[in-house]
Amino acid sequence: MNDARSIQQYLYEHIPLSRAMGVEVVEAAPDRVRLSAPLAPNINHRETVFGGSASALCILSAWALIHFRLQSEGFVSRVVIQNNTMTYDKPILSTFEANCILDDQAKWKKFVNTLSKKRKSRVSLSSSLEYGGEKVGSFEGTLVAIIM
Amino acid sequence: MNDARSIQQYLYEHIPLSRAMGVEVVEAAPDRVRLSAPLAPNINHRETVFGGSASALCILSAWALIHFRLQSEGFVSRVVIQNNTMTYDKPILSTFEANCILDDQAKWKKFVNTLSKKRKSRVSLSSSLEYGGEKVGSFEGTLVAIIM
Repeated sequence: MNDARSIQQYLYEHIPLSRAMGVEVVEAAPDRVRLSAPLAPNINHRETVFGGSASALCILSAWALIHFRLQSEGFVSRVVIQNNTMTYDKPILSTFEANCILDDQAKWKKFVNTLSKKRKSRVSLSSSLEYGGEKVGSFEGTLVAIIM
Repeated sequence: MNDARSIQQYLYEHIPLSRAMGVEVVEAAPDRVRLSAPLAPNINHRETVFGGSASALCILSAWALIHFRLQSEGFVSRVVIQNNTMTYDKPILSTFEANCILDDQAKWKKFVNTLSKKRKSRVSLSSSLEYGGEKVGSFEGTLVAIIM
């Protein structure tokens, strides 16, 4: 899988909102992607993190995990989000993170097997919204990959 | 209710991501808020709108409706998002809009009555994601108002 630095570079070049949000790739591995963003560009009228920024960081973490993991396994596909839910449990007062984990190997195998056979496959995954070492919200989403 | 121009000014000053996204307030009335954003700052790796931007525009439309309608009715409250779902039905290739409508008067009355009595109240509402005159996605969310 690409390293954190090259993924960050890709995001900045191809998804300009990630640059406007000050997104940093903290960790990137086949089974997890952790992104962070500072408060300042993502602040709201209450001087906490704007819900739209929290949501966007989670979506980005899920998308990056699927996109770069598929790429590392040799798939040339496009990955798009189909739907998601978000909960915002506590206000966020500083730098925040989205931690997306997909460590269910059977689920991944089923996803890529379907992708190989049908050229289209969907996968559900979750990302945890974190701040100060605590979980402050959660994302659940379904992403679709289509072989080009 | 504040006019579209003053709401846009407020968003740009207090939620900087709205400026980075190029958000424009197209229409603002007590029962509806319509926001638009151009493709360029919200583009993704496929040259369509990034899901995080679509989601953020819908959240902003719902938040603006509740915040400015409460303000126009004399409430000094803070309004935050508690949870939401999003569906992304079609790729968006150009300027897109979020159209939030809350025309159920009984629902509004119940929401503000509870807010007056308990100093805290929640309301669910939906926003339609639109592009080229067509609905291309949808938002459903719950917002909470707390009297300060």
